[in-house]
Amino acid sequence: MDILFTFNIEEHQKAALVQNFPACTFYFKRTASCEEANIADVIVTYGGNINRELLARAEQLKWIMVASAGIDKMPLEALEERNILVTNVRGIHKTPMAESVLGHILGLKRSIPEIYAIQETKEWKGDFHSTELRDSTAIILGPGAIGGEIGRLLQAFGVYTVGCNRSGRKADYMDETITFEQLKGKLPQADFVISVLPSTPETKGLLTAEHFKVMKESAIFLNFGRGDVLNEEVLIEALKEKEILHAVLDVFQTEPLPENSEFWTLSNCTVSPHVSGKSGKYIERALDIFQENLEKYLNKEKDYRNVVNLKQGY
Amino acid sequence: MDILFTFNIEEHQKAALVQNFPACTFYFKRTASCEEANIADVIVTYGGNINRELLARAEQLKWIMVASAGIDKMPLEALEERNILVTNVRGIHKTPMAESVLGHILGLKRSIPEIYAIQETKEWKGDFHSTELRDSTAIILGPGAIGGEIGRLLQAFGVYTVGCNRSGRKADYMDETITFEQLKGKLPQADFVISVLPSTPETKGLLTAEHFKVMKESAIFLNFGRGDVLNEEVLIEALKEKEILHAVLDVFQTEPLPENSEFWTLSNCTVSPHVSGKSGKYIERALDIFQENLEKYLNKEKDYRNVVNLKQGY
Repeated sequence: MDILFTFNIEEHQKAALVQNFPACTFYFKRTASCEEANIADVIVTYGGNINRELLARAEQLKWIMVASAGIDKMPLEALEERNILVTNVRGIHKTPMAESVLGHILGLKRSIPEIYAIQETKEWKGDFHSTELRDSTAIILGPGAIGGEIGRLLQAFGVYTVGCNRSGRKADYMDETITFEQLKGKLPQADFVISVLPSTPETKGLLTAEHFKVMKESAIFLNFGRGDVLNEEVLIEALKEKEILHAVLDVFQTEPLPENSEFWTLSNCTVSPHVSGKSGKYIERALDIFQENLEKYLNKEKDYRNVVNLKQGY
Repeated sequence: MDILFTFNIEEHQKAALVQNFPACTFYFKRTASCEEANIADVIVTYGGNINRELLARAEQLKWIMVASAGIDKMPLEALEERNILVTNVRGIHKTPMAESVLGHILGLKRSIPEIYAIQETKEWKGDFHSTELRDSTAIILGPGAIGGEIGRLLQAFGVYTVGCNRSGRKADYMDETITFEQLKGKLPQADFVISVLPSTPETKGLLTAEHFKVMKESAIFLNFGRGDVLNEEVLIEALKEKEILHAVLDVFQTEPLPENSEFWTLSNCTVSPHVSGKSGKYIERALDIFQENLEKYLNKEKDYRNVVNLKQGY
């Protein structure tokens, strides 16, 4: 079986794969634009290089392992037609992402940006309006693996958690769950509105101007899911009108965020360059999932971890 | 009974006290330099105005309620001689302080200062070396009410917690506790060293150059207790020599921190102007404790909350 890696991993990780799977031939190439793609049974990728042109060449391809959670840029229909198995690393982002979300929230509540700012001027000044997380309320849009981890940590801080998903079905670490339709009615109670939604037909443009208008003026909005959950003009307007206190954005409609975007300069907006999922443990965890699935593949077992439903897109 | 408040509280809080305790006369003065100090049975204070001159005048004084945790500036011996009851608000700082500690730690691990910095330049740059809290180790110097709350939250993030106190006695939310003598042997394992120690004869100068030399180069040191747990020159040297990665300091030997202190300009040091205990809920919580104790005082009960041991100094 031929396995093509299109991103770099460390030498000791390559050696471990070769040793653990003697029946497989590994090609460590850092690109999909290579001859080996034409014969590969498996492609291990960050996802960005999977397109129709590649699929046409990759005649032997049976399984794509995507070392990322979002697959919205991939040609899902073509993959479905070819009956190609797609697995991802859903869940491995949950630790760094939840830590980043909590770090941003705690920073804003505990006046840490102001603390950094006064250090520049050597000004011993303590009249910040620091507040607490405890006894506040958070709505988590997309209470899956990542949203659940955020909910678990928020609960440890004494925050009441409201999960919001399509069906309103119960979710781990949510004190309550509501449907997308019930969101607007709940928003006036939220101190934090946190989206970790993937990009799907149902989530595109989910948040509208009306949603921001009913939020508290003290509310903090965080988008760590996908940029197209809203029209960015809507959020820029809400921030300019101070309809909410602050936004922290890790994702955008266009990435890199264009230099002329107003998000860069709004004083009540934090631009995070899509880094919240990063940590030194990423590839290690992705390879753990890959090896688990590869073993199942070779044993012709079927219960793969993190199979992507190509119809739903996640 | 005459009760003098030497700091400001809100009108509705004054009204509630007057209504709840008709047997008492309240003087809301915002200072101890007043005639009423001479007749007061109880002084409610932040502590800074309690000195020998005041004690000499305050002949009726039986109880000092300090709305702060540290009493190290007060004339403890004189208070003991006079057999004056001293109570404080130990524990009410725990929520805002623990949230501040976690905010600073998460910020540093998740590259939040770098994120703020690139926004100034509109540079979409993601090559930060973000790491995770999960699976790290923290030593908490002073695992009492505040240290325990920090420990509880760190454990929620998957951090192994080591409490360090004089006796090594077990403490809540600590996976392990060690004595001050065992500290140096344990420091090489710590990713975070967090002091919330009060200033007492045993804690003054507890941390020496030797301690910083054995810490990891990636270690983060946080002092949210009292500045005199170390000689500041020792820490400045350790930071200059990059013996540790970063320090976050909320307390200093001299406060306000003098403008010529090198802490202000060291790039691996965060100066927090003694604000970590602040939150809008502070006075509300202090008054809850005061009213509980006042009721006991009037009923001649003895089990006051948060009595200060004047010999130990906390």
